[in-house]
Order: sequence, then C-alpha cells, then structure tokens
Amino acid sequence: MTGASIDLNADLGEGFGRWRLTDDEQLLSVVTSANVACGFHAGDAPTMRRVCALAAGRGVRIGAQVSYRDLAGFGRRAMDVPPGELAAEVAYQIGALEVFARAAGSRVSYVKPHGALYNRVVRDEEQARAVVEGVLLAGGRLPVLGLPGSRLHACAREAGLPVVEEAFADRAYAADGTLVPRGREGAVIHDPDTVVDRSLSLARHGTVTSLCGRTLSVRARSLCLHGDTPGSVGLARRVRARLEEEGVRVEAFA
Amino acid sequence: MTGASIDLNADLGEGFGRWRLTDDEQLLSVVTSANVACGFHAGDAPTMRRVCALAAGRGVRIGAQVSYRDLAGFGRRAMDVPPGELAAEVAYQIGALEVFARAAGSRVSYVKPHGALYNRVVRDEEQARAVVEGVLLAGGRLPVLGLPGSRLHACAREAGLPVVEEAFADRAYAADGTLVPRGREGAVIHDPDTVVDRSLSLARHGTVTSLCGRTLSVRARSLCLHGDTPGSVGLARRVRARLEEEGVRVEAFA
Amino acid sequence: MTGASIDLNADLGEGFGRWRLTDDEQLLSVVTSANVACGFHAGDAPTMRRVCALAAGRGVRIGAQVSYRDLAGFGRRAMDVPPGELAAEVAYQIGALEVFARAAGSRVSYVKPHGALYNRVVRDEEQARAVVEGVLLAGGRLPVLGLPGSRLHACAREAGLPVVEEAFADRAYAADGTLVPRGREGAVIHDPDTVVDRSLSLARHGTVTSLCGRTLSVRARSLCLHGDTPGSVGLARRVRARLEEEGVRVEAFA
Amino acid sequence: MTGASIDLNADLGEGFGRWRLTDDEQLLSVVTSANVACGFHAGDAPTMRRVCALAAGRGVRIGAQVSYRDLAGFGRRAMDVPPGELAAEVAYQIGALEVFARAAGSRVSYVKPHGALYNRVVRDEEQARAVVEGVLLAGGRLPVLGLPGSRLHACAREAGLPVVEEAFADRAYAADGTLVPRGREGAVIHDPDTVVDRSLSLARHGTVTSLCGRTLSVRARSLCLHGDTPGSVGLARRVRARLEEEGVRVEAFA
Repeated sequence: MTGASIDLNADLGEGFGRWRLTDDEQLLSVVTSANVACGFHAGDAPTMRRVCALAAGRGVRIGAQVSYRDLAGFGRRAMDVPPGELAAEVAYQIGALEVFARAAGSRVSYVKPHGALYNRVVRDEEQARAVVEGVLLAGGRLPVLGLPGSRLHACAREAGLPVVEEAFADRAYAADGTLVPRGREGAVIHDPDTVVDRSLSLARHGTVTSLCGRTLSVRARSLCLHGDTPGSVGLARRVRARLEEEGVRVEAFA
Repeated sequence: MTGASIDLNADLGEGFGRWRLTDDEQLLSVVTSANVACGFHAGDAPTMRRVCALAAGRGVRIGAQVSYRDLAGFGRRAMDVPPGELAAEVAYQIGALEVFARAAGSRVSYVKPHGALYNRVVRDEEQARAVVEGVLLAGGRLPVLGLPGSRLHACAREAGLPVVEEAFADRAYAADGTLVPRGREGAVIHDPDTVVDRSLSLARHGTVTSLCGRTLSVRARSLCLHGDTPGSVGLARRVRARLEEEGVRVEAFA
Repeated sequence: MTGASIDLNADLGEGFGRWRLTDDEQLLSVVTSANVACGFHAGDAPTMRRVCALAAGRGVRIGAQVSYRDLAGFGRRAMDVPPGELAAEVAYQIGALEVFARAAGSRVSYVKPHGALYNRVVRDEEQARAVVEGVLLAGGRLPVLGLPGSRLHACAREAGLPVVEEAFADRAYAADGTLVPRGREGAVIHDPDTVVDRSLSLARHGTVTSLCGRTLSVRARSLCLHGDTPGSVGLARRVRARLEEEGVRVEAFA
Repeated sequence: MTGASIDLNADLGEGFGRWRLTDDEQLLSVVTSANVACGFHAGDAPTMRRVCALAAGRGVRIGAQVSYRDLAGFGRRAMDVPPGELAAEVAYQIGALEVFARAAGSRVSYVKPHGALYNRVVRDEEQARAVVEGVLLAGGRLPVLGLPGSRLHACAREAGLPVVEEAFADRAYAADGTLVPRGREGAVIHDPDTVVDRSLSLARHGTVTSLCGRTLSVRARSLCLHGDTPGSVGLARRVRARLEEEGVRVEAFA
C-alpha cells in the first residue's frame, strides 16, 4: 500500500502543580498530535501554557484532552454528570486551552475525552451528546478524536462535527473490533516488538490481529501512544522510526 | 454638567455548584457591565454559561472577574503566587469565560481582578505586571477595570492596554483619594440615601466627600455596585433610577 | 401506642467558604441528630468547627455526613470510586470531623452517607462494603444511618456495626417499601400538613401510606428532615411540635 | 561527646492521586519521624493510609505535615488566611491523619507546618498563634516541630505545647543563626560530602559553619532530610550511616 499516512497522538501535560507525569518534551519529538490536559484531571495553567508553547514550537497539533472534574481520581472514575453540566465543563476546558494555544501562535485543533469519560462515551448516549454539545458550545466545529463505532462519534457526526478514529497498538482487540477491557488477561500488550509490528499493520493495512487470532479491519487515522510509564517514550520513538522506515508518512490528520 | 454618563458594574455568577450568592437576574436589570466569576473563587462552568446567556440577552457587557485560585477563601486571601503562575491563571480564566460569552453571541470585553487580588495589585508591582501579562496572553487587548492610581493601571497603560477607572459609592475615601480599608470605622457606608447621593455626585461631578469632610475629585467611568447582601439589589436599582432621573446616561464604557 | 420515641436527623453545615445553605442554628433547635458535612461535598473546616460547637452546646448528637469528593456537584453525581479509595475517603472525613466534635466536648456518634453515595449504597455491594470499611478504619464501631433494607445496612451488620434505619415523611414510598425515585411524579410530598401527618404515623405506628394507597410498615428509629429550602425549617419545627403534642418522645437514637 | 542522639525527619506521602513525589518506602528505611502530608498541599486519603501503614510497620513516628489549602501551588505560596480559618484547617488535617495513624496501630505524635506556612510562622505572630490554636483544637498536646527561635515555637511554648527544634544540613545559615533564604547564592548546599559532614557536626556538637565561616551553635533534636529529588534518598541514607558509624544514636525525639 503506497502513500499510507498516520497521525500519532499522545496525552501531554498531565502534571499538576509540583507534580509531573508525562515527559512532554520527549513526546513532542515523536507525536504529531498532542492531547493536552486542561485542568480537570491534570494540567494546571502554567503547565498548559508551557506545553502549548513547546507543541507550537515543534509544529505539533494541539488538542483539548477534556475530562471529568476529578483531580484526586485523575479523571479515571466514571461520574454521573448531568448532561448540561458536562457540556459546560467540556466547553470550559476547551476555552481555557485555546488561550494558551493561541498565545503560542497555534490553536486548539481537536477534542479528545480522557480516561473514564473516554470510556463512558463509547456507549453512553447521553454523555456522548453532552460532550458534543460542549464542543459545539466552544465553537469552531472541532474534530472529535475517539474510538471507531463509539456513540461519541455517532453523535458528533449527527451534529456535523468531523470525527477522527484512533487505534491502539498496545491494546488487544476482541473479535468484534472492540477493545478488550483492561483487567482482562492479555488486554494490554507489553512486548515492544509486538507493539511496533501492530503499529505498522494498523498504519499500512488498517488491520490488527484480534486476541483470538483473527485479522480485523480497523480504520484509524491516528494511533494513540503512551508516555506516562518508564520506557513508554522509547517505545513511541521506535514505533515512529519503524513507520517511517516502512514508508508510512507520519503526519497530523487533515 | 450636561451629557454625563456612567457605567455600572457588579460581580455576578458568584455561586458554585449548589450554592448561589448573587441575584444574577435582578442585577442584570440594573448594571451595564457584568463581572462574571470564572471558576477560581466562584463560578462553575454551568453558572458561567447561564450568566453569559442572561447578560448577552439583556445587552449587558461581559467582563472576566479573575481571581486567585481559592474556592475555600472566596478569593479573599492574598496569595504570594509567582508571577508566571499568576499570569497563566489569569489567562486560563479569561479563556474559559470567553467560550461562554461567544456561545451567547457576545464576548469578554474587559477584565477585573477580584477580592484579594484586586487589593493586592493596587500596590504590588510584580503581581500587577503578572495580571497584565495574563490579559495580554489571552489576546484581544482587553481593558482593565480597577482603582484609579493603582499599580495595575500603571502596568496596563505601559503595556498599551486600555484602563477603566471605577469608584465606590458605598466606600469611604481617605483625604488622599484612596479607599479607607475595610475594618476601619466608617469604611463602609450603609445608609442607602447616602449611597445614592454619592453615586450621583461621582457620576455627575466626579467628586465625593472624604471621610474627613473634604471634597475629592475622583475620576471614574464606572461605579461598582454590590449584589451579594440582603437589600443590595434594591439599592443598586435605586442608584440607577436616581442617576437616570438626574439625566445621567447609564451605559457601558466605550 | 405508648412510649413511642423517634430521632430527628437533618443535614447541617452544608455551606462552603463564603456560601451558606442550611440554617444551622435554627435546625439545631429542632433535630436530635446533626449530619455534619465533612468537606467533600460541602463543609469547610471553619464551618465544621462552628456547627460542632453549636450542636454540642445544644446537646444535639453529631454524625459524619460522608460523601464523594465532589464540591462542584455537591456530592450528587454518582462516581465509580474504587473501593480502597472510597474507604480511605470515608475514614478521612470521619477523622476530620472527630477533631471538631471532640474540641466541642462531644464526639462523632454515627455515620450517614450523603447524596449520590447514599443512593448508590442502597444497592451497590462493592461501594457499600467500602463505606463500611471506611467506618471500621475510623474506629469506634460507629452506627450507620441509612435506608432499611439497603446493602449498606446489610454490610454494616455483617461487620458487626450497629445500624439505624431512617424514614422520610416527605418522600413517596412504592408498594414494596422503597422510595419512589425523585423525578417520578409524586415522588416528593410538598403539602406541609401531609408531611406532618406522615411523620406522626411513621413515629407512632411505624406505618406510611404508599403512593398507590396501601399501608406499609416502615421500621425507622430516625426521621430525616430537610433544612435547605425556604420554609423547610418551619416545617421541621411543625413536625417536632406535632410529635411532642401527640406524646412521641423526640430523642436521639440509643 | 558521648551519647549524642538525633532524630531524622523527612516529608512523606507528598503525592496526590495519580502523582507520586517522595519515595516513601525508601525514606522510611532512613528516617525516624515521617512528616505525612494531610491532603491540603499533597496527600490524598489512600496515600495517607498507605504511608501510615508503612510507617507504623517500620516503627517510624508519624507527624502531621499541615499546610495551606493549595494543591496547585503545593503549599508553597504564602496565604493571608484569617487566624480562625487557619486554626480550623490545621485541626482538620491533624484529625484526618489521626484516623490512618490509629488504623495502623500508631498515632499522630507531632505537627510540622509545610512550605510557605513553615516559613511564614517563623516571623508571623498571628499565623503562628493560629497554628498553635489548631494543634490545641486537635487535642493531645502534640509537640510542634519547627525552626529554633521561630514565633511558632514561642507561641507553642506559651500555650504549654512541647517544641522540637530542627536543623538543616543542606541549608546555609547566616551569622545570626537564621537560614539563608532560598534564591540567595549558596543558600542550598549541593555537595553530598559537605551535607554529610554538617549532619554529623549538627548531631554531635550542635554546631554548623555559617555562610561567612563562623562556627554557630544550633540546638536541634531533629535533622530534616529531603526525599523529593533524584539522589536525595541516597544522600539521606549516607547521612544516617555516617551518624551511626560515629556513634550517634539515630532515634525519634522523646
């Protein structure tokens, strides 16, 4: 397959105050899209400012990584937020990030839900609609990055928003194309070589092998990489290098 | 004096979640400029959205009431925030509010510091510069509402930002034109008739009687009214009615 | 029925910083048990101190009203908190309140979950166990106030903790003895006379009429009153007066 | 000098939610007193529980490291908190920690202010009194760990609380025995050998060389070690090893 191209996205700026988590400078030398935390699960204002400046300086696209309001739980605890509140909270986060993106000479180019909210809007119609309402409130008709087949994407399309589908090279897929839930055996792929190979397969052929050995078709314009564990940045670097060696153009989605 | 005009500003949206403080709907029928809380001392996202919609619907100008990050202290506890952090926090708040102002068909038209930050930047050069830096970060060269003679205004002017001076009809002035600190006897004027009279004097003649009985010249394009205590909205209404009866145009500053 | 007695409980100290919600002083002249907010949905440290001093001064029993960590949502948004975190958060809140109860010459005498957590542990086994684990962590084998038949009470009993069952005179009961969910028509009873009559029936006879007109047996050693809406304290006062007129002893549970 | 003994204290549990800062397990193999963060600048409930269990398991004394309420600033931004609020906030933190100390079979044995509060109460009489009031509110007449000659210690003594003086082997002292402010050249001593030597001198002889080369007498029953930077735990370990080699007993203060 000639001319294949892929976007690489990762979560950045996930520190808060004194605390750091992601190695933002290193990640920015690998990814083409930066999901910047906006203060609700991580990401205080000075961190957001710094990460936007770094991303803009390297030509990395800036996205708003919106979350439930839950610093203590890092946005990983699902919350029954009423839709009107959730929509407003999503818009608030996008607006706050927009200031720093613009100050750095860039802008917020897409929205990606974080953690428990990401998982919830795969199936929860009400919260998916609320996230889309929040994106619309923020204006600019921003693309929504998420899981293929998610309610979030269905709602975004209905509202006329562009959607960007992403895949995970380090997560196992079930035969029906959904992610095997974390906690189930084999859900997370730890072997670096396998992750690199799967990245290439996803980027070039749009396929991945399911947990039970079947070849699945997975449409994705973006691959999600991770940067919050030891060795994760090194692995992200290897993924990018391999993609480029094999002639895949690594570039932000259109 | 013919043709006198004055802006009336008040703090709005100073609830948080379940809590309400200001009677936003009533105040919006009185003021021409709404200092909307942005989430750091008060003002969660749904409240900000609601207040912006109400203000825009009534043609009331929306300003960002920026604060130290201190919900428990309602932004009334001075904090030694390093200037880089403070600038980023100010910009963050403006950006978050801008989303709701724009969604309502309006925009953020000015910035006013709240509480302890307001008082601090009267004299603190470093924090005054940081607030101005935050306003510049947020873009749009927004006017800064504050106390005549404050460091904040000096720094804003240096940076080329417009400044808007405000006066307080319910606060006592010292002979040198500064406000008598709260806590000192006579610092707050409780008699409604006196407040109404002083409002008129400030708006028409730019004068007010100091605590020691001297007539002071106080340049102010805006009067600050209050809406968070029993009877305060009624008093605000009386002030506006009296100004209009006396031929003062009540209108947002240019 | 001679010798009937009942405890009256209400939520207190549900302000935060500048914000007030409950009329604590008035409520303390009515109730025998005060569910004091501990800082996670409401209740900053100075408020907790003040309310404990008032309660102790009037001989009103102090209970820890524990909640999800959610100031913006007032603890009304269910959260998927992992059990280990929830247990620790419950214990943290009890410990913080204990300081103020003891400083006032009293102590924390029981625990009652608030809002979304209260509703969740009616059926959620995992979170019910976590709340009980939190109570055990805090020591002192405190009684747990909750809904008859709840998982919370089942788990508390298994752990050897005393349970105290409560009833609601202003909420409709379904035929099976469960509360009609808020939002369903008729779920909340607004007529004061009806609330007073149902209070008396619950306290004297342990019965209440269900939404469909059946007489239900509802065992409850405590009635939950409300103090956060206009008129609610007046109604609470009427309930207490009527109970006493009819010979019901109003006293804290043993 | 025969029979010299010294306590070693360090800050522990300074993570929050997903974030970690201090290497608690390693530090607990070095120190005799653990200043455990209580949730206001760091230290969520699960972290507090875990650290208390680890400390109790190793026989390390548990102290409450109380702070301004400022997660975003890690308690490093001085705040003008009114004394009544500050006292209540200090008591709240001690009470919350006490639960986890007791659950682990230990108890809170002392109190040490953190960061900006620590520095403020060296000279600020009002806040020093407020901290002492908070300790008294919490009961148990806990010792207060702090800087020799601080207002905090003066106020604690007046109130009948025991005081424990500490010294810093990695901070420069001025000729008058006060610490050279961070930010001034030479304020922090980075050379490990020098830190080890100064630790020994402080522990055995109660002396340290001032920035200008004078030998100062510094009475201290505890040395403060650090564990939040790369290499700091290794250095702490070296300090302890050297003290023990030289016959200094490393043990918690009486």
